Amino acid sequence: MININENFLNLQDSYLFSTIAKKVSEFQKNNPNKKIIKLGIGDVTRPIVPEVLKAMHKAIDELGNIETFRGYGPEQGYDFLKNKISEFDYAKRGVTISPDEIFVSDGAKCDCGNIGDILGEDNIVAITDPVYPVYLDTNVMAGRSGKYNNKTGKYENIIYIPATAENNFIPEFPNKVPDMIYLCFPNNPTGTTLSKSELKKWVDYAKENKALILFDSAYEAFISDEDVPHTIYEIDGAKEVAIEFRSFSKTAGFTGVRCAYTVVPKELIAYTKSGEKIELNSLWNRRHGTKFNGVSYPVQRAAEAIYSDEGQRQIKENIMYYMNNAKIIKEGLQDAGFTVYGGVNAPYIWLKVPEGLTSWEFFDKLLNEVNVVGTPGVGFGPSGEGYFRLTAFGTKENTIEAIERIKNMN
Amino acid sequence: MININENFLNLQDSYLFSTIAKKVSEFQKNNPNKKIIKLGIGDVTRPIVPEVLKAMHKAIDELGNIETFRGYGPEQGYDFLKNKISEFDYAKRGVTISPDEIFVSDGAKCDCGNIGDILGEDNIVAITDPVYPVYLDTNVMAGRSGKYNNKTGKYENIIYIPATAENNFIPEFPNKVPDMIYLCFPNNPTGTTLSKSELKKWVDYAKENKALILFDSAYEAFISDEDVPHTIYEIDGAKEVAIEFRSFSKTAGFTGVRCAYTVVPKELIAYTKSGEKIELNSLWNRRHGTKFNGVSYPVQRAAEAIYSDEGQRQIKENIMYYMNNAKIIKEGLQDAGFTVYGGVNAPYIWLKVPEGLTSWEFFDKLLNEVNVVGTPGVGFGPSGEGYFRLTAFGTKENTIEAIERIKNMN
Repeated sequence: MININENFLNLQDSYLFSTIAKKVSEFQKNNPNKKIIKLGIGDVTRPIVPEVLKAMHKAIDELGNIETFRGYGPEQGYDFLKNKISEFDYAKRGVTISPDEIFVSDGAKCDCGNIGDILGEDNIVAITDPVYPVYLDTNVMAGRSGKYNNKTGKYENIIYIPATAENNFIPEFPNKVPDMIYLCFPNNPTGTTLSKSELKKWVDYAKENKALILFDSAYEAFISDEDVPHTIYEIDGAKEVAIEFRSFSKTAGFTGVRCAYTVVPKELIAYTKSGEKIELNSLWNRRHGTKFNGVSYPVQRAAEAIYSDEGQRQIKENIMYYMNNAKIIKEGLQDAGFTVYGGVNAPYIWLKVPEGLTSWEFFDKLLNEVNVVGTPGVGFGPSGEGYFRLTAFGTKENTIEAIERIKNMN
Repeated sequence: MININENFLNLQDSYLFSTIAKKVSEFQKNNPNKKIIKLGIGDVTRPIVPEVLKAMHKAIDELGNIETFRGYGPEQGYDFLKNKISEFDYAKRGVTISPDEIFVSDGAKCDCGNIGDILGEDNIVAITDPVYPVYLDTNVMAGRSGKYNNKTGKYENIIYIPATAENNFIPEFPNKVPDMIYLCFPNNPTGTTLSKSELKKWVDYAKENKALILFDSAYEAFISDEDVPHTIYEIDGAKEVAIEFRSFSKTAGFTGVRCAYTVVPKELIAYTKSGEKIELNSLWNRRHGTKFNGVSYPVQRAAEAIYSDEGQRQIKENIMYYMNNAKIIKEGLQDAGFTVYGGVNAPYIWLKVPEGLTSWEFFDKLLNEVNVVGTPGVGFGPSGEGYFRLTAFGTKENTIEAIERIKNMN
């Protein structure tokens, strides 16, 4: 008899974005003349830059010519892209990551989920709270979560590390030592960062406890402060304890183009239950080669084009456009008396909802009174209650208007 | 302490293609003036057709325009593509598959591997032998294989179903009933097919035993015989027991473009250990939504373009080109006295190596004596010993020359 993976039955249905969509569409139906401004979704809106378009067009023409046609590429990605990544994202920051430590993929979401394939089922998982739900759900599927507790809103075997205003959004070491620690900085959803010294504490903690850090660096391109590390490998010893996930989705507007990469250093060691040391690089290489067939060739050429001088200039223009929106939101909300976090090194603004309201109540208030849509913090985890996320990915005009409306809200 | 998934330690290193590459490069080094013809690899060589190029160029320009830009698409694929698949690949063959039973992905290799995520670890797996190694290796990783036995060349918990000349390449029901049955028809590596009545026996067997058929239909486009089913859902009852994997890789030369899809019918049921019925469609939907972020937009437009009249005409021209090569190989080898299988409904020719030689010995003979490269059958599993695979994906000129050389071989 064919059995399912019963861990899937432990998954909680996420009604977050579907509930938002339903509420928005109901409101619009009842108020057809109101112009709703959506600052809820974490998707980019600026078009792909000309250098990237040019590279993709060229790559496609190559595929149409028998002399330059390419079929299967290396599962790990073409050298032309991995060399650029190694040089620009690492060597230029004083970090040595060799091309065979880089695995190009079609998305950081896929990699964050699939990485669990090479790790033991009994590892104890820690996530920060609030959190990007993929870290949690993929571990539920893999059997690392235990049962869900409806009262606490938590899974029994998952360690939740709160990151809230109380601890300045700096996650503290939990009481129980985890084996896998997901860290995302600049953070989604809070938009906050860790300084080098704060991140170093986590690297040292992981070394001391033979734990693995899964470092999601999807928002690296938005960093402007000097002391914020662009890669975890800027921290001494991180290569021995951390896997880094990077994405072109937000960096270059590739959410629909699909390209990302994962770094698994050769120094990174995990263990068998009997204590034998195993290189994770070779395990991931085997997984990637067996269950993946490489990223679309024109897409890899698109990613390569980002690293040209002109490509860099063009994508930075978009980043600045979004970060100007972030500034508008942050300063506007502060003027309006809100307490606001993030928005400096990340495209997310995390605000404290007014005293006495839950994050869903604040969602309803914003939608009904000023027709602005954001995301209730509790949707990202229990510690997100009392907070609300706005994103900088709208147009400048809409962003200004939304903030003006909020300012004038009763 | 961070533990690895120790099932990975049960994987056998596959030296097949690396050994081939090494032997070929050594031979070339020692014989710099010899022209080697490679008919070993399963990758296409014809360029992408103009209709597809046109669609991709257009899609890329859309991404460069703020009015038509698209970010994240549906994880399951855009309706414009799923509707075409539903209509052309199913409705036109009298089969009803609705778009929400279709999951677009970046490769059938990924899907064949990832499908295991939703299935229980204790399911008994059956594969045909010889076989595409991905079915086996992904189940080793998932803990379904047990240990490898060096003497037999088999994993202790895997059921190997021989498909050889002795049984006319029609796999027979094994002694022990499996829960998961991988079938690939037209077959890689043997190039053979199952008739509708033969496939029906397997569907009935799966129903009777509450087993799941994982049907890999990557070579469907090469079918020319009337009685060979193009989809397993042509068989009554298959929707209750089968998942189908399809790919554009060989159909339209997309090995470097990357697009495929998987069909999980709503009727398809699996069970909890306590016997509760669970719809696999919703489990796979959840898996796809959590660990995948959709296929590149221009790539989905590329796949859509295949279904236009002109697109169909153009891709069929390439298929006919390859199948003409297959005919040249098949008839040439028969003339030369070889016993040959496949090559009529598939781009693979499976030949019996001359009496007294192993498949590796025949590989060496071909390479050294006539400078032609193929793939030793034993590389695909123990029952592949004594056979040899040639592919129809070369150029016509090289294919003719290779066969002439083999004909004149001592």
